[in-house]
Amino acid sequence: MDEARLIELLDRVARGLVAPADAALALRDLPFEALPEAVIDHHRELRTGVPEVVLGEWKTAAQIAAILTALAAPGGGALATRVDAAKALEVVAAVPHAEHVPHARIVRIAPATPRAVRGRIAVVCAGTSDGPVAEEAAVTAEFLGCTVVRISDVGVAGLHRLLVRVGELRNVDVVIAVAGMEGALPSVIAGLIDRPLIAVPTSVGYGVGAGGLVALASMLTSCAPGVVTVNIDNGFGAAVAAARIARAVTR
Amino acid sequence: MDEARLIELLDRVARGLVAPADAALALRDLPFEALPEAVIDHHRELRTGVPEVVLGEWKTAAQIAAILTALAAPGGGALATRVDAAKALEVVAAVPHAEHVPHARIVRIAPATPRAVRGRIAVVCAGTSDGPVAEEAAVTAEFLGCTVVRISDVGVAGLHRLLVRVGELRNVDVVIAVAGMEGALPSVIAGLIDRPLIAVPTSVGYGVGAGGLVALASMLTSCAPGVVTVNIDNGFGAAVAAARIARAVTR
Amino acid sequence: MDEARLIELLDRVARGLVAPADAALALRDLPFEALPEAVIDHHRELRTGVPEVVLGEWKTAAQIAAILTALAAPGGGALATRVDAAKALEVVAAVPHAEHVPHARIVRIAPATPRAVRGRIAVVCAGTSDGPVAEEAAVTAEFLGCTVVRISDVGVAGLHRLLVRVGELRNVDVVIAVAGMEGALPSVIAGLIDRPLIAVPTSVGYGVGAGGLVALASMLTSCAPGVVTVNIDNGFGAAVAAARIARAVTR
Amino acid sequence: MDEARLIELLDRVARGLVAPADAALALRDLPFEALPEAVIDHHRELRTGVPEVVLGEWKTAAQIAAILTALAAPGGGALATRVDAAKALEVVAAVPHAEHVPHARIVRIAPATPRAVRGRIAVVCAGTSDGPVAEEAAVTAEFLGCTVVRISDVGVAGLHRLLVRVGELRNVDVVIAVAGMEGALPSVIAGLIDRPLIAVPTSVGYGVGAGGLVALASMLTSCAPGVVTVNIDNGFGAAVAAARIARAVTR
Amino acid sequence: MDEARLIELLDRVARGLVAPADAALALRDLPFEALPEAVIDHHRELRTGVPEVVLGEWKTAAQIAAILTALAAPGGGALATRVDAAKALEVVAAVPHAEHVPHARIVRIAPATPRAVRGRIAVVCAGTSDGPVAEEAAVTAEFLGCTVVRISDVGVAGLHRLLVRVGELRNVDVVIAVAGMEGALPSVIAGLIDRPLIAVPTSVGYGVGAGGLVALASMLTSCAPGVVTVNIDNGFGAAVAAARIARAVTR
Amino acid sequence: MDEARLIELLDRVARGLVAPADAALALRDLPFEALPEAVIDHHRELRTGVPEVVLGEWKTAAQIAAILTALAAPGGGALATRVDAAKALEVVAAVPHAEHVPHARIVRIAPATPRAVRGRIAVVCAGTSDGPVAEEAAVTAEFLGCTVVRISDVGVAGLHRLLVRVGELRNVDVVIAVAGMEGALPSVIAGLIDRPLIAVPTSVGYGVGAGGLVALASMLTSCAPGVVTVNIDNGFGAAVAAARIARAVTR
Amino acid sequence: MDEARLIELLDRVARGLVAPADAALALRDLPFEALPEAVIDHHRELRTGVPEVVLGEWKTAAQIAAILTALAAPGGGALATRVDAAKALEVVAAVPHAEHVPHARIVRIAPATPRAVRGRIAVVCAGTSDGPVAEEAAVTAEFLGCTVVRISDVGVAGLHRLLVRVGELRNVDVVIAVAGMEGALPSVIAGLIDRPLIAVPTSVGYGVGAGGLVALASMLTSCAPGVVTVNIDNGFGAAVAAARIARAVTR
Amino acid sequence: MDEARLIELLDRVARGLVAPADAALALRDLPFEALPEAVIDHHRELRTGVPEVVLGEWKTAAQIAAILTALAAPGGGALATRVDAAKALEVVAAVPHAEHVPHARIVRIAPATPRAVRGRIAVVCAGTSDGPVAEEAAVTAEFLGCTVVRISDVGVAGLHRLLVRVGELRNVDVVIAVAGMEGALPSVIAGLIDRPLIAVPTSVGYGVGAGGLVALASMLTSCAPGVVTVNIDNGFGAAVAAARIARAVTR
Repeated sequence: MDEARLIELLDRVARGLVAPADAALALRDLPFEALPEAVIDHHRELRTGVPEVVLGEWKTAAQIAAILTALAAPGGGALATRVDAAKALEVVAAVPHAEHVPHARIVRIAPATPRAVRGRIAVVCAGTSDGPVAEEAAVTAEFLGCTVVRISDVGVAGLHRLLVRVGELRNVDVVIAVAGMEGALPSVIAGLIDRPLIAVPTSVGYGVGAGGLVALASMLTSCAPGVVTVNIDNGFGAAVAAARIARAVTR
Repeated sequence: MDEARLIELLDRVARGLVAPADAALALRDLPFEALPEAVIDHHRELRTGVPEVVLGEWKTAAQIAAILTALAAPGGGALATRVDAAKALEVVAAVPHAEHVPHARIVRIAPATPRAVRGRIAVVCAGTSDGPVAEEAAVTAEFLGCTVVRISDVGVAGLHRLLVRVGELRNVDVVIAVAGMEGALPSVIAGLIDRPLIAVPTSVGYGVGAGGLVALASMLTSCAPGVVTVNIDNGFGAAVAAARIARAVTR
Repeated sequence: MDEARLIELLDRVARGLVAPADAALALRDLPFEALPEAVIDHHRELRTGVPEVVLGEWKTAAQIAAILTALAAPGGGALATRVDAAKALEVVAAVPHAEHVPHARIVRIAPATPRAVRGRIAVVCAGTSDGPVAEEAAVTAEFLGCTVVRISDVGVAGLHRLLVRVGELRNVDVVIAVAGMEGALPSVIAGLIDRPLIAVPTSVGYGVGAGGLVALASMLTSCAPGVVTVNIDNGFGAAVAAARIARAVTR
Repeated sequence: MDEARLIELLDRVARGLVAPADAALALRDLPFEALPEAVIDHHRELRTGVPEVVLGEWKTAAQIAAILTALAAPGGGALATRVDAAKALEVVAAVPHAEHVPHARIVRIAPATPRAVRGRIAVVCAGTSDGPVAEEAAVTAEFLGCTVVRISDVGVAGLHRLLVRVGELRNVDVVIAVAGMEGALPSVIAGLIDRPLIAVPTSVGYGVGAGGLVALASMLTSCAPGVVTVNIDNGFGAAVAAARIARAVTR
Repeated sequence: MDEARLIELLDRVARGLVAPADAALALRDLPFEALPEAVIDHHRELRTGVPEVVLGEWKTAAQIAAILTALAAPGGGALATRVDAAKALEVVAAVPHAEHVPHARIVRIAPATPRAVRGRIAVVCAGTSDGPVAEEAAVTAEFLGCTVVRISDVGVAGLHRLLVRVGELRNVDVVIAVAGMEGALPSVIAGLIDRPLIAVPTSVGYGVGAGGLVALASMLTSCAPGVVTVNIDNGFGAAVAAARIARAVTR
Repeated sequence: MDEARLIELLDRVARGLVAPADAALALRDLPFEALPEAVIDHHRELRTGVPEVVLGEWKTAAQIAAILTALAAPGGGALATRVDAAKALEVVAAVPHAEHVPHARIVRIAPATPRAVRGRIAVVCAGTSDGPVAEEAAVTAEFLGCTVVRISDVGVAGLHRLLVRVGELRNVDVVIAVAGMEGALPSVIAGLIDRPLIAVPTSVGYGVGAGGLVALASMLTSCAPGVVTVNIDNGFGAAVAAARIARAVTR
Repeated sequence: MDEARLIELLDRVARGLVAPADAALALRDLPFEALPEAVIDHHRELRTGVPEVVLGEWKTAAQIAAILTALAAPGGGALATRVDAAKALEVVAAVPHAEHVPHARIVRIAPATPRAVRGRIAVVCAGTSDGPVAEEAAVTAEFLGCTVVRISDVGVAGLHRLLVRVGELRNVDVVIAVAGMEGALPSVIAGLIDRPLIAVPTSVGYGVGAGGLVALASMLTSCAPGVVTVNIDNGFGAAVAAARIARAVTR
Repeated sequence: MDEARLIELLDRVARGLVAPADAALALRDLPFEALPEAVIDHHRELRTGVPEVVLGEWKTAAQIAAILTALAAPGGGALATRVDAAKALEVVAAVPHAEHVPHARIVRIAPATPRAVRGRIAVVCAGTSDGPVAEEAAVTAEFLGCTVVRISDVGVAGLHRLLVRVGELRNVDVVIAVAGMEGALPSVIAGLIDRPLIAVPTSVGYGVGAGGLVALASMLTSCAPGVVTVNIDNGFGAAVAAARIARAVTR
């Protein structure tokens, strides 16, 4: 059913030729018929609470620049993740107001009016090598309107360093815990606090730990219940999930 | 440092022999010294918001019965998961007030006074084969004080069935989406709603899908941002994570 | 938007309070709102050309019997796959007209009126151990209205046996080639004929070949272009794909 | 048996020294004896319906140029896939009428007389990152004489975009669905249409999704029956399979 | 081309209507046309030097009995491998002259006239747990006409036990070395002798060694050049390879 | 060179026919020549400090009984590991002084005179499900003459329980840390003490943790340096390694 | 509980307002409350016997230089591992007294006063390609105060080379055995000596051996009991474990 | 026992102080005692029939040059495999008589006197991309004194090309079959000939076939008995195994 046919049907209802109940029946299948214009992407934030974000890794600088420009047009800003330094340079040169956040591998256009602050998120990481993924999470969460507390270098090999920060972890709405190698950090934190906790494995590791599968599997099999996990190096996804939770909490 | 030495130190503070600031310094390392009595398990709910729960799979019926009895003693009820039918029969016979919830593979002792209701959770599953894992999540969430909405048999092969339930999914605090095979259900739901969503892969599948690794990996790589995941068949863990979120939301 | 609201909107159109074009706009999002009744499963054959079929492996005999009875009610017959002998006995006892096809692990209710014959399919298998999967494909294809030519025991270790049957393979609409172990059969056939060819790996094998992953991977990496593959032991899926092709050919 | 011996045998038949029936018996094993000249490659199109195509990845530019020239000599054109930009430059410089299709990583020599148009194929892809594989499929299908409909950027995270194109998918002979990440697109499409559907996983993804194994496995375990799959990034193979089907349909 | 057409062609040669050279041309493609009768299995020994052997694992006792009877009919004996005790009992009861070799999981019918002795093979195994696979190799090799020297329990953890047997290993035509766990035995032997050496990994092992993949991979990566390997637990295949070599040596 | 030839050579030295230096040259290769009698197994304890122990899993009760009897004959006792309850019953019935230690899956014959006590070993385990592996380690270590301190149920989900036992861990010669699931326990302990620490992963876990590979990999990638690891469920191997260390320490 | 609150509590004890026993109770949870200053890293050597060492792989030269400088400040020297040549150049230029040990990929600052010599360690390697990992172990062990015996190129393919060095292996406190490919070296050594033995797999290998997983798995499944293992290429970790043992031995 | 002690013992035999039988007893353990000089590498050819060969991949050009020079000194030539073009240039410049065989990635020094020709080996490969591995096998076999027949580009997708060469394969002592992708070639050949056949998987392939594991697994699970396999891309190892066989055959 195309739009013309839809309007024709509604015209027939308007003219009394089709009863509303019969029209309802006919319309039940509507979405599986073709409407000529695609639903535009700006609807995504309304639907899921999170605007569309550009995954930069397999796109050219030109493609990233074009999409960022389009996404930012209505004034809500825009974000591209996994953008390497060379591409970022080109994008920033091409897109007004775009800025590069190198440690997070992000190109960002700030919203004309900042989003209302909704929720506090702690981003904890085990070692300095996990920094880029933690920053991807932190910068994304800030873009989505959250306040972010950063806690670094608190891996379980030196338990003291973590234990003295537990109080801070108990004062946020959600904790994002980032770790590579054997990925034990989230298990230990989850046993100490009652906040929602999102674990992010990183690809930092070598030998059997190369690529991050061990950290991921370790987080999935945590003996501390209530740990949830995202893909390896997916700081962005963790931030989106945390923002969904923080928004619900502060509603 | 054992308890005797701790009390001795505090005695010396009481008698003015040690300045409080010096004692504080000495106490900084305390937890890494031995205190004679282990912190008892009933503290866990205070610390993490969730009482200790028995993982029944590798324990004997006698072990499960003993731990359940001890956990339930203070009146807050108790739960054992992954208990097969044969063990459950024995446990129920041995433990007063214990009841078997067969479809969820759970043995449960209801709290003397039910927990206050905190939060609404939807447990959605793709096929009837995913039922036991979904029920493990639902029964656990109810035990933790949540209201649960169950939505079954809405796999993506028949998209109509899912689309007509989207309204319900928009009216809960958290969604738990359970699926085996290719595990596409959470990706599709996450694109339609703005609630926090926890994906649970199940071991339902054969060939390359046997054991549930494909469903898990599919959920981890979802193109819909904000999906978080737990281990295969871990309905219990998803419920604990959901309860943490629901409690935060309703605080 | 629930049905009441839909009918109210159409009523307003009928009464001239809303212009058809405005209603069309409002309706664009309809399918993502809740309609109270789920689209019933009998629509699936209309939509995809193939009726819903029961995957019996993780269902109880009682569940299989109930679903088969419901599916067969309109007279088009019904099929359940991966049903072991014990369950099949119970199902056949409980469901009128149900018959067990043991070698194919299928329980079948023939349609009241057989489907029109559409297309010829060859089901070729490498060894007698691959028989159950080949039969699952053959019986399913017949249920879907195809004529099936069965060719058995033509593995590549004795090339003569295959070469003398090539003429038959050139006279069907689609070839389904079933093999376990190293799975070389489809590669060899695909180099000899111009028909569409669907490869089905089986779990027949031991050592590195156990479970069928080698046969599957071998088929996916075939040096003979145009081979397409389904999951290990998925004779059913191959038959559905073949029937889709055969129906298109004979349209 | 070499050719001399074959002709000697036939001579003896001609001279009445060997009875035709005895010669037939002797000849049964013939193909397993050596004939001096290899069957030339131009026979492949007669046998399988598809001309030999050059897989460029592990060949030098010089090797690709030489084989393309030989294949194109009879006038039917020729194709080389997986040719990177540097090699393509060299090949195009060396081979008359060769042209580079960069987005598809293909070097192509058009046939002197285009093949008769046979069949319509839709090539659908989930994201712009899947573009090169989709183009490999599309360009190959066109070379084989098919009409191609391209539909891009309809991943399941934004279901609207796909649903409005379903009508187009119902109007082709075969659908090729290309997706990386979690690879859910073919499952959703297969539940909506009745056309043969070939799924192509791409290597687009990171973490557990790196390399495309998750997308592949997801397609193999699709809960929507009738999906068939090719190797990761094998747009070429999907096009050959689609062309075999389209040719059969339009026969 | 069927047999009738073949004889017609030869008739035309006999009658001078077709020149022998033209017939030779026509016959070049013969084997790819259908001849009505399949080449019977008794030819395999002529072609490959080894008679067809029954792989019993996925066959019923009745199937094994029937095939053994047929294969043994001409008097050359027959062999079925991977036959468990229950099936073997049935087979032996049903097939005259069949005997069960339990430790080797083999059912054997001795040839009416023993094969001429051709070659000496040493079958060496690392531990007593590897015994069944070693015996499968030994019994098969004896059936194929080889003399077998058995050397057991010479794993590398006690190097003395192996070193004192090296002299024997230097006096055979081929060595088959069978080992599970870390599979180091063939590497050590290959550095000490100049005989062809076939390594057989077994599924004996637990933890990461379960199933035999470690033993297999260890043999494939042996730092001692010239080790060749067969599938896990494939004592039969090793014996066939060894017999091919021994026969060549003693030709 | 066999023994006869060796004695002949030495005879010739004795008779002055061969110079000692020349004999030395000839003897350099000796061990690679065959001596008729195998070095008997009782030498192993002299060579490696640990007597031969029977791995019971793939042996029959009769085989285990025979080897235990032979090993125990000189009076030093004997041990068989991985013996299930049914076999153990048979072995104990057949072998004098043999006793079954069910929780450790061990059959043991105590030495006539206990070994001198050498070293203190702590066997720590994360959960009660890890008990059988921990007991295999403890019982083996005791058999080898070590004093064993058992510490149970101190998983990282409840860090208090572990921290209060750290003092005990600082008072042994070696720590064996046993854990399944995500295997984080050894990482945490290794950061708190300066003793040698051997990590033992167990097969306790489900989903991605099934079989123990995650616990193993987690221990191998521990961010706490100095953790060494053995195979999954290999409590025996850990005890042997610990005894080697303890013996060196107490030398 | 922050420091202010801690001192307030101790003040109340000092003033007699809180009884020491009650304060002890209150303090039991102390370490899980936040203290404002992190425990500094120089404590690690006191706690675990090994100073903190820099893992250089994912850090910039500037980061490595800064941390080395800080660690070396108290005079005990410092070490950074996995530092490639380019980074090492920068670090050495920036940090006084830093020297590059290229074959070991280490940057080292010698302690002002060398550590007392404690223990003898043999570092054995199978082939020259394993050299860098063996050197990482050797240089680390020397930094930790051990005497190191290096034995190279004694792989099992030429057993003579190893056997003539066994005497030396029997004269050290710990053996570190480094091997790639099939990793059989530690199994053979462990059967010949009674010293603690730490196996280090290397990533030297190709085909199934690429990356070192085969060597690792082979070492984990060694049939020679008492072998313990570290991660692939983790010479550093092996040296730390060896130093822990050597220190205990020489205590 | 060092050499001095050995000579002392023999002296005591010479002087009649020790009886030969007692000395024999003492000498039984000899090889496990240290002799001061390592057995030199030139003995390897005597022991295993194959001289030591340099694996060039992880060695520097200088190391390769030095070892080649030493190995070639006695006049038997020398070989280095897996030498890339850059290293080869350096090696050839540094080592007299060294020549680079680029397609085989080999640097070779011909023996002063060629080895006697022993045996005929066919090296068959499926596609031109498999060429370098096939050449490594061929050049190595020639170096070891074998005559080599090369047969290229006979993959199973065009069965004609292979079948016409079967006669040649029946006229050699050993066949080496090299294939990547799905690796079906050896299975097909093994069913056609009675010669020993060594399968060599190559790393040619993409998607699931990347790296060659599919080809390897396919060869290991071949339904044609008697196929033996070496590691991926290990043309060298296949040639050594083939030479061992050929030498035995021609003995």
